[in-house]
Amino acid sequence: MGDPAGIGLDIVVTGLNARRASPAPGFVFVGDSAALEQRARLLGLPLVVSALAPDARNFGVPEGTLGVIDVACQDQVTPGKPSAANAPATIGAIEIAARLVRGGLASALVTNPIAKDVLAAGGFKHPGHTEFLGELSQRYWGKAAHPVMMLAAPQLRVVPVTVHIALSEVPAKLTRQLILDTARTTVAALKSDFGIAQPRLAVCGLNPHAGENGLMGHEEQSVIRPAIETLRAEGMAISGPHSADTLFHEAARATYDAVLAMYHDQALIPLKTLAFDQGVNVTLGLPFVRTSPDHGTAFGIAGTGKASPTSFLAALDLASAMAQRRAGQVA
Amino acid sequence: MGDPAGIGLDIVVTGLNARRASPAPGFVFVGDSAALEQRARLLGLPLVVSALAPDARNFGVPEGTLGVIDVACQDQVTPGKPSAANAPATIGAIEIAARLVRGGLASALVTNPIAKDVLAAGGFKHPGHTEFLGELSQRYWGKAAHPVMMLAAPQLRVVPVTVHIALSEVPAKLTRQLILDTARTTVAALKSDFGIAQPRLAVCGLNPHAGENGLMGHEEQSVIRPAIETLRAEGMAISGPHSADTLFHEAARATYDAVLAMYHDQALIPLKTLAFDQGVNVTLGLPFVRTSPDHGTAFGIAGTGKASPTSFLAALDLASAMAQRRAGQVA
Repeated sequence: MGDPAGIGLDIVVTGLNARRASPAPGFVFVGDSAALEQRARLLGLPLVVSALAPDARNFGVPEGTLGVIDVACQDQVTPGKPSAANAPATIGAIEIAARLVRGGLASALVTNPIAKDVLAAGGFKHPGHTEFLGELSQRYWGKAAHPVMMLAAPQLRVVPVTVHIALSEVPAKLTRQLILDTARTTVAALKSDFGIAQPRLAVCGLNPHAGENGLMGHEEQSVIRPAIETLRAEGMAISGPHSADTLFHEAARATYDAVLAMYHDQALIPLKTLAFDQGVNVTLGLPFVRTSPDHGTAFGIAGTGKASPTSFLAALDLASAMAQRRAGQVA
Repeated sequence: MGDPAGIGLDIVVTGLNARRASPAPGFVFVGDSAALEQRARLLGLPLVVSALAPDARNFGVPEGTLGVIDVACQDQVTPGKPSAANAPATIGAIEIAARLVRGGLASALVTNPIAKDVLAAGGFKHPGHTEFLGELSQRYWGKAAHPVMMLAAPQLRVVPVTVHIALSEVPAKLTRQLILDTARTTVAALKSDFGIAQPRLAVCGLNPHAGENGLMGHEEQSVIRPAIETLRAEGMAISGPHSADTLFHEAARATYDAVLAMYHDQALIPLKTLAFDQGVNVTLGLPFVRTSPDHGTAFGIAGTGKASPTSFLAALDLASAMAQRRAGQVA
């Protein structure tokens, strides 16, 4: 569901309609059923839901209908007007969906955008989806996870080593161990989930011009380069630290399969500049497959029909492809 | 000249040859004449130089020749092998070129790439070209300048508010006053040098998602937003702080004439991702016009013929256009 006041409900409805004519990975909706039907009416689009129980043994629903596991919101859902009182339903929907994957009834989890400040006002303790999914991994799979956020688009895959923290906190949070863990998780996922036999990783510097030999910042020499050398000694095809500004044009992109960026905007700016609609947010390092459209709740256009379902549909497609590769069904 | 061991000499030679057939702004070369001729021989391209005295009264040279004001290097010039002993010639060439503009003999200064660490080893005290040009403004024009670096390409103009400093220093260096000064200089230049009557400025946040209402960093609320409000009260068409990652796709770029970014990579990543070859580095806020190709010395390919003169030629064109607008010759 994501935040029900955001565009998550819009893109479920419009995405479903866009896909009626063409084969798509089947999905069920976990969230407020009445709010979803209301959104379809608001958008003037057809939607017939089939109620499913959270403990359903299968997701069989009549053709032309969307299976829905209802998670009712406490407060009235109004597009563009988020309510902290609906945070428990937003979070509960994620928990139920994760359990469905744990039970083998679904092969992957696709989450819609949440608003961190709305959830925080509702008592949510995690800085974002990715971190919360790490907790669910522990809770339902009994596995400690080091969740890693990747943004994937046809043109580019990027992984920010630090993510949802203030820029002023980035230098202190950037450790050799964090780079090692993130790089290893990324390369393992490129193999298992993306089908790349010998992944090539390019690593950004932190500072302008990657510090220009220590002239502007020391982290390239003290943290990033030693981590790269350790990983190279393990046999990883890894390069850097590169000047981040010269790493994302077409010729440069041909030299790697993914980029490790040091912080959020260093990864997200090139991704969204190149592929604003087509980016997918993927969580690597989890015992389950999870993707998400690569955009926010966009409260300002919720309920207007202006939201594009492109990224949501790409997230469905990628989740399906990853789950099949992980299950060994695709080479 | 720029660093004579870099691609600066290459692109002067190849740029000149690329333009033989089409009209281009005329230029003279200030730097090591013998090294330039040697580079032309190495690249197998024709070059006939005409020596000019530093105190020449005009730049008239025989047709088909390049006017050169010789600034001899102390050390042997070897492509790809920079020498700190040649730093004085690199710096001296900039000083002489600035004086030619001061004297009215040239209408603009186009500088080739320097290597800050090579110059620093040679005793150069400035973090980059831009800061040095501020000093030359004081020295030759008697005007204190607040030089502002803009990167300009057909798709995008960006201005980083902080530039060549370690990322860890950015939050402390980012003050309300610096944003005010940079925005005012940028808007003035968009009017006088770029011919935009009512410039629209978009301002990035510093933190991920522009801090998301204070959840990740406070600078949007304490520094950036107050500066924007001051400027808006002065009548400036200014928006933000925007989430930087969603500010550079095509639809977003249609809403502004330039972006104020908070630090180097936030500005340079989108610029070079969109326009790797076509970007021009422009210094705003000086009493003279100065542009530069938007790339480094690229020592690794100096003398090989692989360096593209596209950005150098764009820098010549833009310098010429800016000088004409400033002189009132173009509306």
